[in-house]
Amino acid sequence: MIYIFHFLLLTVAITLIAPNHPLQTAFAFSLLGYLAVLKLIPRVSDSFIKIGLKGKDLSKPHQPTLPETMGLVSAITYLILMIFLIPFVFFKYLVSFTNDDALTSSTYQKQFAAISDNNLFPHNKLAEYLSAILCLQSTTLLGLFDDLFDIRWRHKFFLPAIASLPLLIVYYVDFSVTSVVIPPFLMKGWGSQIFLVINFFIDGVNRMVEGLSGLKFMTRESTLITSPPLLDLGIFYYIYMSAISIFSPNSINILAGINGLEVGQSIILAVILLLNDFCYLVSTSISQAAHDSHLFSAIFLIPFIGVSVALLQYNWWPARCFVGDTYCYFSGMVFAIVGICGHFSKTLLIFLLPQIINFVYGLPQLFHVVPCPRHRMPRFNKTDGLMYPSYGSLDKPNKVSSGLLTILSTLRLVDLQQEEGENKTTTLRFSNLTIINLTLVWLGPLREDTLCLVILVAQLLIGVSMIALRHTVGPWLFGYDNLSWGVK
Amino acid sequence: MIYIFHFLLLTVAITLIAPNHPLQTAFAFSLLGYLAVLKLIPRVSDSFIKIGLKGKDLSKPHQPTLPETMGLVSAITYLILMIFLIPFVFFKYLVSFTNDDALTSSTYQKQFAAISDNNLFPHNKLAEYLSAILCLQSTTLLGLFDDLFDIRWRHKFFLPAIASLPLLIVYYVDFSVTSVVIPPFLMKGWGSQIFLVINFFIDGVNRMVEGLSGLKFMTRESTLITSPPLLDLGIFYYIYMSAISIFSPNSINILAGINGLEVGQSIILAVILLLNDFCYLVSTSISQAAHDSHLFSAIFLIPFIGVSVALLQYNWWPARCFVGDTYCYFSGMVFAIVGICGHFSKTLLIFLLPQIINFVYGLPQLFHVVPCPRHRMPRFNKTDGLMYPSYGSLDKPNKVSSGLLTILSTLRLVDLQQEEGENKTTTLRFSNLTIINLTLVWLGPLREDTLCLVILVAQLLIGVSMIALRHTVGPWLFGYDNLSWGVK
Repeated sequence: MIYIFHFLLLTVAITLIAPNHPLQTAFAFSLLGYLAVLKLIPRVSDSFIKIGLKGKDLSKPHQPTLPETMGLVSAITYLILMIFLIPFVFFKYLVSFTNDDALTSSTYQKQFAAISDNNLFPHNKLAEYLSAILCLQSTTLLGLFDDLFDIRWRHKFFLPAIASLPLLIVYYVDFSVTSVVIPPFLMKGWGSQIFLVINFFIDGVNRMVEGLSGLKFMTRESTLITSPPLLDLGIFYYIYMSAISIFSPNSINILAGINGLEVGQSIILAVILLLNDFCYLVSTSISQAAHDSHLFSAIFLIPFIGVSVALLQYNWWPARCFVGDTYCYFSGMVFAIVGICGHFSKTLLIFLLPQIINFVYGLPQLFHVVPCPRHRMPRFNKTDGLMYPSYGSLDKPNKVSSGLLTILSTLRLVDLQQEEGENKTTTLRFSNLTIINLTLVWLGPLREDTLCLVILVAQLLIGVSMIALRHTVGPWLFGYDNLSWGVK
Repeated sequence: MIYIFHFLLLTVAITLIAPNHPLQTAFAFSLLGYLAVLKLIPRVSDSFIKIGLKGKDLSKPHQPTLPETMGLVSAITYLILMIFLIPFVFFKYLVSFTNDDALTSSTYQKQFAAISDNNLFPHNKLAEYLSAILCLQSTTLLGLFDDLFDIRWRHKFFLPAIASLPLLIVYYVDFSVTSVVIPPFLMKGWGSQIFLVINFFIDGVNRMVEGLSGLKFMTRESTLITSPPLLDLGIFYYIYMSAISIFSPNSINILAGINGLEVGQSIILAVILLLNDFCYLVSTSISQAAHDSHLFSAIFLIPFIGVSVALLQYNWWPARCFVGDTYCYFSGMVFAIVGICGHFSKTLLIFLLPQIINFVYGLPQLFHVVPCPRHRMPRFNKTDGLMYPSYGSLDKPNKVSSGLLTILSTLRLVDLQQEEGENKTTTLRFSNLTIINLTLVWLGPLREDTLCLVILVAQLLIGVSMIALRHTVGPWLFGYDNLSWGVK
């Protein structure tokens, strides 16, 4: 029965492949990727276990040994698909490059047309596409190294920035738009004075860097123009994009530890970003450039969803494999890339809100204000098969740590417990600062899959609300919506 | 003492980095790569052994266990260097892109100038560069998988073709030159008739493929023009380039098995290719396009030599590490890439002559015409510490196999030995068909490092002769030399 379904999917996928329709072909490739990953994971699992890529699932009664790093299968399948997709995405130009009359009767004609007015191949788009694949492949390699060798935290934190370098160079060459829009209400009264000071500082630093490097980061023509008010960040915009490419993979990696959560949150995020893309793609009034960026984003997200859903089938409770850091880095970088290349890196941050909340919430432990145990996963109770919050112990309380925990406790953001020690000392125990534990503190013990589902549904609801906010409150705050205005 | 030398190298490297001089910066990066690999290999060796990337050196008295796959360190260092090199290679355009007056007083101005006449960024060059790095990174990943999982022969043989796909797409878009020059003397009398038939066949196949794909592979304007006579191969030229990207990595991987040989031959090959590049780069009469292709090649080869020399220091007899399939694939693909992107893939084949000879010589074993043992490495003799030829046994001789071996033996290309079995049967033993064994057959037992050195010196001599032949007999045969003629 399941084989008939897979055979049908395969037939549909092959039928959908069409040179002139990149979105449709991306969807077909997504189906192919889904099927490939579905077939590959069981076939390679033993090889992975054999070379030591395995781990114990501590949240199961018998703690089975599962293959690790299975996200590698998804990542490699995705990369191969994206390489094969190139001729389809650029098909019109491959034809028109040598054959002019192929141009006339194509629905694909309107897409990407901004650059092709002079009928030349859009090398800049190809460079962007290639740098995106290159960046993703570097990230996959980095993730694999982390799974194989357990790279030190301080090394792996910054390595994504190197991976994203080709992307930044292409950005510099192709767009060099480094301005951000400031909400007009901030520019009233003292606001504009403050922005003048900030602008003065940014301009100074940029002039210094430009003098040293010989490059040019700011246009200086559009600095602090009004309606809409723009602030040209120059080099800081590149630092900001680097930061996105560091933050996005790491934020996925931090919100992890229960079956299905890493892949689940990635799929939800991809769906939310895709919904946002289609807000633009179905609109008729947006600029060609905005249309192109969101088409780029959709082309990268659709096959990603395919290879991830197959992985989720194996990683969902009770998991038959772990996804590994490879998957977290890889998926995080997919989001960073579509954010940067799709020119909506600020919007991306809104959709990463659950990850940001989890990161900020965990900061006291990450910076060791309160103690941080090696693992902060929730605790599995063998008796009832449910997950309970895991706790850290405040052995040496000081004003900062106990004060912080008291405040969090008052806000119902942490569960505090007094523990009697052997020598009648009391130790303060606190639920570990992750939103996974917080969910358990709020809702009581849950089975692992329910816990995962609760977090994913919350993420989906937040995401959909954010899309709505983005296109209602956003335009009101900023005085325009690029759905109608269009980025240049 | 050695630290002072390294410190000096580092100082020189940093001093040499200059935005306007890509070749000089590539040299500086080569030094940096050398130092990085030199420091990294001892630091990561234990981690590699720990996860099972290790092997026994069978050609040593005590068969020490050495870390495997150390070529990965060279490959990753190289990839990071090549990413950081991008802004230096394209510096002029990064500046001129926003700042026109930076153009006037630069020695770099003449380089790459062909495309920049209209003062636009050469996105096609960037796309070429990025696709080359992408292809190399895919190949490194593939090599790593092979070292980790022992991929099946039939899988790993064709995977480099997928890795090279972005390269072929960029070639299609940017050059689409698919013609090869035919020596004029072949075009006399019956020769021209034969070529008309060949051309008819090629044209037919291309029309069919073009009809099916909608793409266009042949220009059909320059088909079989004379002086110099050209044959437009169309789609076959892409198949040929794919074949190069498959053959080059595998040919390095086949000529292997003794300390230092994999890296040694790669360095020699890189030096030969670099010499050939400089023949063009110092010439004043060549076209800008030919200058650019060979500059591209040199920029990719110089850092490669740096990271390889450091690896050789650890891999030279007595080896402290193995390089792994990763290095063979990686280095083979570097050559394929400079051959394809530098537009001298046919010349590349001349320089790969020792590898081709080794491959052709080994074909009877690879295709099991005569038996092929699992390993064909020479045999180490503990008593005298020398290497002796290893032998295969012809248990069931037939006309083809014994006839072939007799012919080879007459030509002194194999050593045959009769072996008396237990039941008075005689088995024919033959030295394994690799040029490593043949060297030992010809020169008698040698120590491992002497053996390696003999092969490397032979390779260097062949290579240098080939450069000389390429620019003397080549022009005479083909009626022109692109040193003066220039590829368009």
